[in-house]
Amino acid sequence: MIPLFLRPMHAVTNYLKKNQTRFIRELCEYLKFPSVSAQSEHRADMVACANWLVAHCNGLGLETRLCPTAGHPVVVAKTPRSAAGTDRPRFLVYGHYDVQPPEPFELWQSPPFEPRLVGRSLFARGATDNKGQHLAHLKAVEAYLKTGTELPCDITFVIEGEEEVGSKSLAAFLKKHRKELQCEAIIISDTGMPSPKHPALTYALRGIAAFEIILRGPSRDLHSGIFGGTVDNPAMALCQLLAKLRDANGRVAIPGFYDDVEPLSAYERKQFKRLPFAARQYRDFLGVAKLFGERGYTPIEQRSARPTFEINGLTSGYQGEGSKTIIPAWARAKITARLVPNQTPARISNLVVRHLKRLCPPSVHLEVTTGHGAVPYLVSPKNSQAQAAVRALREAFGFEPVLMREGGSIPIVNEFKQILGADSLMLGLALPDDNAHSPNEKFDLGCFEKGQLMSAYLWRELGGVRRKA
Amino acid sequence: MIPLFLRPMHAVTNYLKKNQTRFIRELCEYLKFPSVSAQSEHRADMVACANWLVAHCNGLGLETRLCPTAGHPVVVAKTPRSAAGTDRPRFLVYGHYDVQPPEPFELWQSPPFEPRLVGRSLFARGATDNKGQHLAHLKAVEAYLKTGTELPCDITFVIEGEEEVGSKSLAAFLKKHRKELQCEAIIISDTGMPSPKHPALTYALRGIAAFEIILRGPSRDLHSGIFGGTVDNPAMALCQLLAKLRDANGRVAIPGFYDDVEPLSAYERKQFKRLPFAARQYRDFLGVAKLFGERGYTPIEQRSARPTFEINGLTSGYQGEGSKTIIPAWARAKITARLVPNQTPARISNLVVRHLKRLCPPSVHLEVTTGHGAVPYLVSPKNSQAQAAVRALREAFGFEPVLMREGGSIPIVNEFKQILGADSLMLGLALPDDNAHSPNEKFDLGCFEKGQLMSAYLWRELGGVRRKA
Repeated sequence: MIPLFLRPMHAVTNYLKKNQTRFIRELCEYLKFPSVSAQSEHRADMVACANWLVAHCNGLGLETRLCPTAGHPVVVAKTPRSAAGTDRPRFLVYGHYDVQPPEPFELWQSPPFEPRLVGRSLFARGATDNKGQHLAHLKAVEAYLKTGTELPCDITFVIEGEEEVGSKSLAAFLKKHRKELQCEAIIISDTGMPSPKHPALTYALRGIAAFEIILRGPSRDLHSGIFGGTVDNPAMALCQLLAKLRDANGRVAIPGFYDDVEPLSAYERKQFKRLPFAARQYRDFLGVAKLFGERGYTPIEQRSARPTFEINGLTSGYQGEGSKTIIPAWARAKITARLVPNQTPARISNLVVRHLKRLCPPSVHLEVTTGHGAVPYLVSPKNSQAQAAVRALREAFGFEPVLMREGGSIPIVNEFKQILGADSLMLGLALPDDNAHSPNEKFDLGCFEKGQLMSAYLWRELGGVRRKA
Repeated sequence: MIPLFLRPMHAVTNYLKKNQTRFIRELCEYLKFPSVSAQSEHRADMVACANWLVAHCNGLGLETRLCPTAGHPVVVAKTPRSAAGTDRPRFLVYGHYDVQPPEPFELWQSPPFEPRLVGRSLFARGATDNKGQHLAHLKAVEAYLKTGTELPCDITFVIEGEEEVGSKSLAAFLKKHRKELQCEAIIISDTGMPSPKHPALTYALRGIAAFEIILRGPSRDLHSGIFGGTVDNPAMALCQLLAKLRDANGRVAIPGFYDDVEPLSAYERKQFKRLPFAARQYRDFLGVAKLFGERGYTPIEQRSARPTFEINGLTSGYQGEGSKTIIPAWARAKITARLVPNQTPARISNLVVRHLKRLCPPSVHLEVTTGHGAVPYLVSPKNSQAQAAVRALREAFGFEPVLMREGGSIPIVNEFKQILGADSLMLGLALPDDNAHSPNEKFDLGCFEKGQLMSAYLWRELGGVRRKA
C-alpha cells in the first residue's frame, strides 16, 4: 500500500519504467544527427538536429522555440505555466546538442552516428556528451507532464549548440534573455560520476590563470664557442627562475600564493575519502612510475581541491635534429595555474609577476604576459539545493552519493553565476569509461534510466527550496 | 749597408713589395669563382676554381696536383726538392678554396663574386675566409721561388674544398696520404686577429661534448585540470634538474667537472691582458645589458680558456599561440659543454650522465644521449715553433703579437693531430669586422701584404726548428 503523499511520484516513476524502450529509441534518433559544431560541413545537420529537438520538446508539452545567435541556435523549452499560479520556483536545465568531431573514424568499432547497443552500453558520438544526459532530464519532465502530475517547479531547458566550440554565443544569449531566464539554480548533467555505485554531485571547479614568461638575452642566437662563457644563457636563466617556483614538497613557492585558499573542511575531506581511487590503476592509466603532488593531500584533493602551477610548454633555441652550438637569444615558458576558492586570477597574476621580477637576474630581460583567467567556483555542498540534489541522487541510484570537486574549469558555470546570479548543481551521469571526446563514446543505459529518476526526484526535492534573496 | 746574412730575405721582401698590385689582381681572379661547396649548382664552379688554383700553383713553380675525394677535390702543391738534398724540415700549409653561401644577396652592397676594392678593403665572398689568407702564404713561397732564394724548409700546401661543409673528406684524404704529408707542423691562417696592431697566434681551442636530455612523465600530454596536481610535470622537473647544474657564480656545478682543467699559467693570463677588450662595446655588440660568466676570470678567459655548460635548446609541450592547458608528456634540453685542456668529451659525458642520474627524481624518467665530441686543443705558446711564429708575426706586423685561445673548436686541427701527429700553428689574418660568413665579407689588404711577409719570415724562423721526435 503506497502512502498517499507518494502516489503522484509513483505515477511518474512508473511512467519512466514503462517507457524505457521508447526513450532509447528516441535517444538513438537524436544521436543520428552528426551535429558537429566545429565543422562547417555539418551546418545543415546542426539545424536539423536543433529542429528535431524543438519538435521533440513540443511533443512533450513544453513551450519550445529556437533562438538564433551569432553562431548555432539555442533551443529554449519551458514547462507550461502552472494552473495554480506562478509562485513555483524556477530552475534552468542546461545541455548542449552539439557534439565533438568524431575523427579519427578508423578507431570507431561502429560508425559514430549509427547508434549501436551492446549490452547496456549505447555507442555513438554524443551519447554521454551530452545528448543522453540532457534527454534524461527531458524524459523526467515528460513523465510529470504526461501523467498529469503537478510539477513542483517551473523548468526552463536551455540547450545550446556551441559547447564543444567554447560556448561563444552563450553569454550574449544569457544577457539578452536575462529576465526570462531568472532562476533559483541551474542544473547541469555534463560532468562525471566515479562509478555506477557512486552517484555524484560536483560542487566546485578550479579556476585558472595563464602566463607567458619570456627571458631575453643577447639580441640574436650567439655562437657558443666564440661567446659562450661571457653572457648568461636565457634557457638556463629560465630554468633557474622556474625551478624556484615549486618546492620539493610539490608546493607552489610563490609568496602569498596560498593566502586566499579556503582550507578544506573536515566534512569535504571525509567526502573525498569515499570516492573510489586505486593508486596503481591511476598510475598505470597515466603511464607514470610514481605519483607526485603537494604533500599532505590525497591525489583526489591534489587534482581537484588544491591549486597548481603547471608549465604547459617550453621553447628556446634549437629544437631540430642533432645539435646546434648556440646561446639562444630567448627562452619562453607557457604556464597555467589552477586556482581554488577563494583565489582570483587577478591576485595570483600580481603575485606571480611580482615574484618573477624579484627573482629575475639582471643578466636577462624578463617579459611576463598574463593570459586568460577564470575564477574558481564553489557552491557549499551543505546548502539546501545541494542537499536536495544529494537526496535525489541517493533515491534514484540507491547508493550514498559522493560530493566531488572538479579539477578543470567549466566557463559556462561562471557565466551563469555572473549573468544570472545563480549557482549550478552539477549532477553528471558520465562514467569514467564513457570515452567522451574519444572514439567509441558510449552512454550507460543504467545511468540514462537512473538519471531520469534522479531528475524526477530532484524537482520534488527542489520544489520547496528557494535560494536566499 | 745590409748585412750579408740578411740579403736573401731582402730579395724576398722586395719581391713582395713590388708585386702587390698583381697579387691583388690575382686574388680578385680567384675570388670571382663562386666556389660554394654547399650548393650543388656550383659544382662546375668548384671544379673551375680548383683548376685555376692548380694552374696558379704550377705557375709559381710548385709541384701541383688535384686529388679527387668522395666530395670536392683537394689541391696539393709542393715546393720542389732542394738541390742540396732532402734534410729540410717539412711544413704543411692548410687552406680551403670553398666559400660560404653568399645569401642573402640583398644585403650585399656589391655582388659577392665581383670583387670590389674600397680603400684598403677588398669585398667579396671568400676574401678573408679563406682565399685571401692562404694566397698570402702562396705569394710568400712564390717570392722565395721567383727570386731564387733557398727556402729553409719544404712546404706542402693542402687546400681543400669542403671546409664550409664540415671537411667531410679530409680525414680520409689525410689517412690515404699520411706518409706523403708527414710534417713538423701545420700552418693555418683561418682564424682571426683582434686588430691590425695585434697580430695573433692562436695556440688553443676549446673542445666540445654534446648531450640531449629527455625527461619523460605521463605517457601522453595530460589535461592539467583533470590530472594536474597528482603527477610531476616533466618541464618543471627538467628546469629543476638543469637549474642545479650551474651555480650563482657561473660555475658548472657538476662534481668533478673542473678536475682535469689545466690551470691558466701566469704567462697566459698576462698575454690575455694584452688583448684589446672594451666591455661596453662588447655588451652592445651582443645586445645584453650585463655580461655574466664564471667569477674570477676575465671575459676573454671566460670565452676561450674556461669550460662552459650551455643549454642550446629547450622543447616541451605546447609552443603555439595562446595557451594549452596540459601537463607535457616530456621535456627535452639540448646541451653542449665547451671543454678546455685537459678535459675530454668521454670523461665529461660520464660525469654529466652520472650526476643527472643522481639528481633525477623518481617521478620522471631520464634519458640522456651523448652526441658529438671534440677534444680541446693546446700547443704550448712557449714551444719553439710557437715562438718562431711569434717572431715572424712581430717582424711582419711591427707590433708585439698576442697569444690567443679560441673559444670554438676547429675539428681539422684535431684530425691533423690524430692522423699526422702534428700540431697546428694558427696565424689568423682575419679582422673582427671582416664579416666572415656574413654579407659584405672583406679582406684587409694590409693583412694580405703583412700576411705574406709573416709567411716569408716564418719559413726562415721555422727552418731551424724541428719538432721533438
